[in-house]
Amino acid sequence: MKQIAILGSTGSIGQSTLSIIESFPDRFAVASLAAGRNIDLAFEQCARWRPRAVSVATEELAATLSDRLKGAGVSGVEVVYGTEGTVRVATLPEVNFVVSAIVGVAGLEATYAAVEAGKAIGLANKEAMVAAGEILTAAARAKNVPLLPIDSEHNAVHQCMRAGTKNEVRRIWLTASGGPFRTFPLNAFEDITVEQALKHPTWVMGRRITVDSATMLNKGLEIIEACRLFNLPPSAVRVTVHPQSTVHSLVEYIDGSILAQISVTDMRLPILYAMSYPERVESDLTFDMAALGQLNFEPPDVTRFPCLRLAYEAAEKGGAHCIALNSADEIAVDAFLERRIPFPGIARTIEGVLQAIPENHPGTISEVLACDRLAREMAREVLIRAGHEVTAPRS
Amino acid sequence: MKQIAILGSTGSIGQSTLSIIESFPDRFAVASLAAGRNIDLAFEQCARWRPRAVSVATEELAATLSDRLKGAGVSGVEVVYGTEGTVRVATLPEVNFVVSAIVGVAGLEATYAAVEAGKAIGLANKEAMVAAGEILTAAARAKNVPLLPIDSEHNAVHQCMRAGTKNEVRRIWLTASGGPFRTFPLNAFEDITVEQALKHPTWVMGRRITVDSATMLNKGLEIIEACRLFNLPPSAVRVTVHPQSTVHSLVEYIDGSILAQISVTDMRLPILYAMSYPERVESDLTFDMAALGQLNFEPPDVTRFPCLRLAYEAAEKGGAHCIALNSADEIAVDAFLERRIPFPGIARTIEGVLQAIPENHPGTISEVLACDRLAREMAREVLIRAGHEVTAPRS
Repeated sequence: MKQIAILGSTGSIGQSTLSIIESFPDRFAVASLAAGRNIDLAFEQCARWRPRAVSVATEELAATLSDRLKGAGVSGVEVVYGTEGTVRVATLPEVNFVVSAIVGVAGLEATYAAVEAGKAIGLANKEAMVAAGEILTAAARAKNVPLLPIDSEHNAVHQCMRAGTKNEVRRIWLTASGGPFRTFPLNAFEDITVEQALKHPTWVMGRRITVDSATMLNKGLEIIEACRLFNLPPSAVRVTVHPQSTVHSLVEYIDGSILAQISVTDMRLPILYAMSYPERVESDLTFDMAALGQLNFEPPDVTRFPCLRLAYEAAEKGGAHCIALNSADEIAVDAFLERRIPFPGIARTIEGVLQAIPENHPGTISEVLACDRLAREMAREVLIRAGHEVTAPRS
Repeated sequence: MKQIAILGSTGSIGQSTLSIIESFPDRFAVASLAAGRNIDLAFEQCARWRPRAVSVATEELAATLSDRLKGAGVSGVEVVYGTEGTVRVATLPEVNFVVSAIVGVAGLEATYAAVEAGKAIGLANKEAMVAAGEILTAAARAKNVPLLPIDSEHNAVHQCMRAGTKNEVRRIWLTASGGPFRTFPLNAFEDITVEQALKHPTWVMGRRITVDSATMLNKGLEIIEACRLFNLPPSAVRVTVHPQSTVHSLVEYIDGSILAQISVTDMRLPILYAMSYPERVESDLTFDMAALGQLNFEPPDVTRFPCLRLAYEAAEKGGAHCIALNSADEIAVDAFLERRIPFPGIARTIEGVLQAIPENHPGTISEVLACDRLAREMAREVLIRAGHEVTAPRS
């Protein structure tokens, strides 16, 4: 029986993880949850799953949740909070698998602590690998802890990599849907609206990741994540645009064979794969081969999607530049969603930060977090400067 | 250094195998050849590769080849002949890998002898597995000898199966190009000419296998081969029509993940894979991912291709019915190529034999060969009877 800690239990990946645990009660149990700010859902999850511990964002939220659990007669759930609380739920002695699904760098310290404590990790938080991949992979190697990707692309690569050894991999191909602007007129990019950017053709996801798919910055983060997870140079991580999102990624071997992974677009499958690894478990997440139909692939257009180019540049420099790619994007996407900058302004903001930030390779999580704060500050400065250049505010 | 015996060295697979050995002189060497009737090419191959032994079809051909080698000053090549000769080249003590590429049941005894002698086998001869798969796989298991498929489809399945265990495979999907008549008007099938049937859309192959691709009987033989090679029931071996022949086959796991193998349509790749296994070797047989373009998949049409249905029926019954499927087809295809029966007559002839042949499970290679002779005789009888029914001979 695997005892699972879910960091980010109220998010989409967290809820899918609970659904998998529900389907396989003989294999998996909930050991602990980190739930953030959604106290209503955290309460429901605690009442249903009776975790040994739950962590929420703040002391006040912890007090509220504690009271509600007491009022409902739910006992035995230790309520903790903040970064320290997340670290605690991730490192409980009974936990043997941690699903790391807190968005952004917030889950970084807990994920690192879990690796240090020797827990197997299911990584759904790509920012953790982008910002601190070198540190996390080094710690995982030292502790002989598996880092299993839950991202559909990297999960596909992990599966395809089983058909050979690491040294037999020539390169990998991450598939990208191309987002809603794959064929959008290039001269109308400045006028793209928030509503247009939030319409993703194949996956339903959160707002930031949907915009990141539209700029393809998301694929850029995945390139960096892949370099770290699979110990590949950026030149060995390629992108192919595949609008149907049926093939989740491919691995090209030195002999010329390419292996591809196909499955339903349902995150429960990579979650189940990661939690069951090295076994595979029978599920009803069946792909209908009769519906395979037509699959298209084409090279990505770097003129249309400059974020891809920026990601390769950051991947080559590593360290601070990868952290900044992610942090600057987060600030820029917020500005776009608040209609303060146009769609191409996202890439321009990131490029401004990447050009200005000094090369640096943080060696600890706290140095990573300091670099993250610096990059955010620089992104705000770039925006303020660009704001002066914009003559009329956008509606 | 792997010492390779090539059974069928003058055929297409044999020549591709020699080309691979030429490209990797540090890994592979030619130990022995079985060459059949093409004495000119056999002479060239002996002069170039200086095998320890070469086998040809008959005593006369052996004498001719011997003289020519002596005349050219090529010494040290033992020239043998017939089934005994083929067995000898396949079982030489220095041989540690046998490429079994003699078309039809002719290579069966030598392949079986090689397995019994503990040689690893690269199987390009699908008839061997169809006619004697139960015997060959049992012998291979007993001797702990790997049977590595060189057929592009089964080679693809072998590669995709490395991403899980045998018990985790739900089913496999063999891809089929669909041949030249995938969209041909069904009411014109009786008028299909030999020339039309010999135009294969993606692979250049011999005449019988090209016609077998047009009837999809070839895919039927591959279904049976897959059942034997991978120890799967017929219901777990499916076919998907994929006109581009880019994906060579797929494996569906119990969790819902499907792995697919993609590569150039060049038999040198599966040969290299089989000869190098479990390693992969760097080659220039690179697939151009930018050319991946569009891939289509659709369910096969069993009305259009009754040979597929017949193959499943034979696979369910096993033994004599599988042998008969192959033998009857060989006779029927000859009759079609000689313009004695129409294209749909191939399936009708096979069906006639399958309905008449008694259920039987040969336990030795000589019983298999006897059953093969019986089925051929029955096919000729079916043809004679049908010939009486055909009112006008076809041109």
